[in-house]
Amino acid sequence: MSPWTSAVGAPQLARLLGSQHTRDATAASPADGPAASPVAVLNGNRRVPAYRALADGVRLLLLEGRVPVAARLPAERELAAALTVSRTTVAAAYEALRGEGFLESRRGAGSWTAMPAGSPLPTRGLDPLPPEAAASVIDLGCAALPAPEPWLTRATRGALEELPPYAHTHGDYPAGLPALRQALADRYTARGVPTMPEQIMVTTGAMGAVAATCRLMTRPGERVAVDSPSYANVLQLMREAGARLVPVAMADHLAGWDIPAWRQVLAAAAPRMAYVVADFHNPTGALATEEQRRSLVDAARAAGTVLIADETMAELRLDDDVELPRPVSAFDPAGSTVVTVGSASKTFWAGLRIGWVRAAPDVIRSLVAARAYADLGTPVIEQLAVAWLLNTGGWEEAIEIRRALARDNRDALVAAVRRHLPDWEFTVPHGGLTLWARTGGLSGSRIAEAGARLGVRVPSGPRFGVDGAFEGYVRLPFTVAGAVADKAAERLAAAADLVATGATAEAEAPRTWVA
Amino acid sequence: MSPWTSAVGAPQLARLLGSQHTRDATAASPADGPAASPVAVLNGNRRVPAYRALADGVRLLLLEGRVPVAARLPAERELAAALTVSRTTVAAAYEALRGEGFLESRRGAGSWTAMPAGSPLPTRGLDPLPPEAAASVIDLGCAALPAPEPWLTRATRGALEELPPYAHTHGDYPAGLPALRQALADRYTARGVPTMPEQIMVTTGAMGAVAATCRLMTRPGERVAVDSPSYANVLQLMREAGARLVPVAMADHLAGWDIPAWRQVLAAAAPRMAYVVADFHNPTGALATEEQRRSLVDAARAAGTVLIADETMAELRLDDDVELPRPVSAFDPAGSTVVTVGSASKTFWAGLRIGWVRAAPDVIRSLVAARAYADLGTPVIEQLAVAWLLNTGGWEEAIEIRRALARDNRDALVAAVRRHLPDWEFTVPHGGLTLWARTGGLSGSRIAEAGARLGVRVPSGPRFGVDGAFEGYVRLPFTVAGAVADKAAERLAAAADLVATGATAEAEAPRTWVA
Repeated sequence: MSPWTSAVGAPQLARLLGSQHTRDATAASPADGPAASPVAVLNGNRRVPAYRALADGVRLLLLEGRVPVAARLPAERELAAALTVSRTTVAAAYEALRGEGFLESRRGAGSWTAMPAGSPLPTRGLDPLPPEAAASVIDLGCAALPAPEPWLTRATRGALEELPPYAHTHGDYPAGLPALRQALADRYTARGVPTMPEQIMVTTGAMGAVAATCRLMTRPGERVAVDSPSYANVLQLMREAGARLVPVAMADHLAGWDIPAWRQVLAAAAPRMAYVVADFHNPTGALATEEQRRSLVDAARAAGTVLIADETMAELRLDDDVELPRPVSAFDPAGSTVVTVGSASKTFWAGLRIGWVRAAPDVIRSLVAARAYADLGTPVIEQLAVAWLLNTGGWEEAIEIRRALARDNRDALVAAVRRHLPDWEFTVPHGGLTLWARTGGLSGSRIAEAGARLGVRVPSGPRFGVDGAFEGYVRLPFTVAGAVADKAAERLAAAADLVATGATAEAEAPRTWVA
Repeated sequence: MSPWTSAVGAPQLARLLGSQHTRDATAASPADGPAASPVAVLNGNRRVPAYRALADGVRLLLLEGRVPVAARLPAERELAAALTVSRTTVAAAYEALRGEGFLESRRGAGSWTAMPAGSPLPTRGLDPLPPEAAASVIDLGCAALPAPEPWLTRATRGALEELPPYAHTHGDYPAGLPALRQALADRYTARGVPTMPEQIMVTTGAMGAVAATCRLMTRPGERVAVDSPSYANVLQLMREAGARLVPVAMADHLAGWDIPAWRQVLAAAAPRMAYVVADFHNPTGALATEEQRRSLVDAARAAGTVLIADETMAELRLDDDVELPRPVSAFDPAGSTVVTVGSASKTFWAGLRIGWVRAAPDVIRSLVAARAYADLGTPVIEQLAVAWLLNTGGWEEAIEIRRALARDNRDALVAAVRRHLPDWEFTVPHGGLTLWARTGGLSGSRIAEAGARLGVRVPSGPRFGVDGAFEGYVRLPFTVAGAVADKAAERLAAAADLVATGATAEAEAPRTWVA
């Protein structure tokens, strides 16, 4: 057991449970305002025993990171009193949690939250749309934009001019082309983080960067602390690599890092690695302050945790009046703690598949050596194109096009959701490509299912959480403009109506799509 | 224990051990002709106990696949008689092998070969050359050629013309661009294997294809049967994925598949997967006959083993008079057993990083869905370039350029090695990009070390084997022309002289490189 403990008091746990209520057609009534008994509301008329509803509630708080791992839970008697349920109910709930690995108890000492040792069940993503559906379905599954032309064409032409000397080589550049490593290093230096090309490895997208770092740094069964919610594909990549994900809850506002919670988790769980998106977080859009960055890095260093800072969204500031903090790596001058991951996919175009890692030279050397047994290298022409963009100023101009488009799309989406779904709650982010919307107490998964039948695809909240958290959310990307955003929100509202009236369970999704 | 057994008789095992003798400066004498006692020769004056030398010999035979896994070894008394050593020596050797997991015994029933459950020690590859060394070192580490210009430039221009409609999308094509899937499917159909685009996924190189298939098909600890020797990077990829590699020895001639041995291993070890390079095998250059292909596929089907057929080298026939057999997949019309992996890297250019998988549509769907948690997709421009090549006939013309270059390089290399290293043995392959050379009884690893100091980099045999096999080999690629091939062979001969005279151990590799 950890030498360190935190405790969650009975009133605090009752309050947290009370904030979880989910309204849907099978619940007793719409739960407006705090419920008299959270357990009763959770229970509703779903014919779930009260102890099971309580256990599920605690489990969800743990999976969302709202109750940290290794925190002491209240004594059964105290929690029973706070929830006005019987002690037997609490005892049975604790027993169920123990059986599932979410609770560890020692007689006379109390009970502590835990994460099960086994891999959590993977949350699979959205399958690619069948081509015949693509025309009639508004696909909000992927937070990526079209290429900021004419810059893709110009950059490819630029690459073509640089190509001849490279064509005379075998084309195998495991660390990336020297020209691109230099250009990316210069960009970090310009952002206030002095960087040498030896600190850069070019990868196949940010996912390639995260995958390589995971393979190098962690072994199956080791802990990885993650924002909760976090980027769905990275969570799944880490699950498949055998990581034990330890969620740390984001706060409900845009400077959303709960630093005391991070300190607790890093100190208590001593994870091998932590993964954060400090710049326009995916999916919430939150932007970490300089103080939060410094605190995160300091806590990671103290815990011996490698902090992966994913900067994929970092250049997508949409509101000019927002001041950008320095990069996370600026708070790690020794280069011992932070590994930065970047990508051209959101900033420029996902069709390039260009990402990179910035780390200490010895880490980069190890990553490069390991690459012989993974993807070997990144395509040359795309690297030349990105180097051309960075060296000619085209990168900045392309980003301005991107920002303007994402800003317009964001504003259209926000207006459309407010119009058609007035009880959905969200905070409008100042950057990034996603809106994290609380679905008015309805199940995000059911809305996603109903939406698929009504011609709109959205990823539901649980994809962005650890093992089932965030049922009451969906993620909406800034990828469609005015009329389409309105149509998408209209279809989502229809889907939400189906869910609210209980009409969703009656039929399986048909094989055809409604236009 | 398997219901099936094979047995290795004492005279057979003695003969196999006798064929292993390695000559180097620390051995008693050059071993020309069969030795009186293999154990004595193995032992030499290296001050290794006789039992240890015998255990090492058996271990190596197992790792090279020359003695199959789950084969019954002779009784101690019989082997002692055949080797003219004491029974105590054999008993101690068997005991050592049991301790290392290479042997399982049951009292009264005998002893069977086994592979240890733990991951074998990885054999790391060659680190990338430091840039300051690249000018003075002949790098024979990588079997890849320059781009067959003008086709790379033409194909990229072609891609640029096709780009505009794709630039208007988010660029995310997890299965690959429809145009390229169609072109690749058509090519299989033209080769006699009717194929639909739904059977193709475009990957990031052949390594991306093998990695994705491994992730989908195997779990850590499962067995994967492999040619022995085999492609070094794939072996290491599988080790890192936790596979238990089961080697199956290649025969010493160019139609090198030992089908009875494959049948034995597939039936006895029932591996989850098998990986073969049937077309101009890497590193030996061997080409499987149609009958071998049919037998391999039938045996894999019977064992429930997925057979990965790596066709990376398939189009690199160098001698026109060699008849190409049908693809391995032609012998699996139901599509239930064979997964084919292909790549443009050797045939066209490694700098593109375009590979693919051909499999049943349901396997492709699973691979595509899993990709969201790996590399997400393959770059668009390179895909358009390869589709352009395939659709315009440029592919065929580029391959002709490639073949002519590889053929000239092969002939230059063969002549140079024969000139400078007359006691090295090899069979000249009719295709592919590599020569697998037996180094006249010297240690390939020591030659590689000495070569690095003398300005020539070669990968030594053990990189292509399971856990230390093939110490007496190096792999030489068809990547350099006349004068350079001669210089490389000259340096290798100097390296071999150093090893033969025992002059290699005296100094660490200096930091500077000899021109």
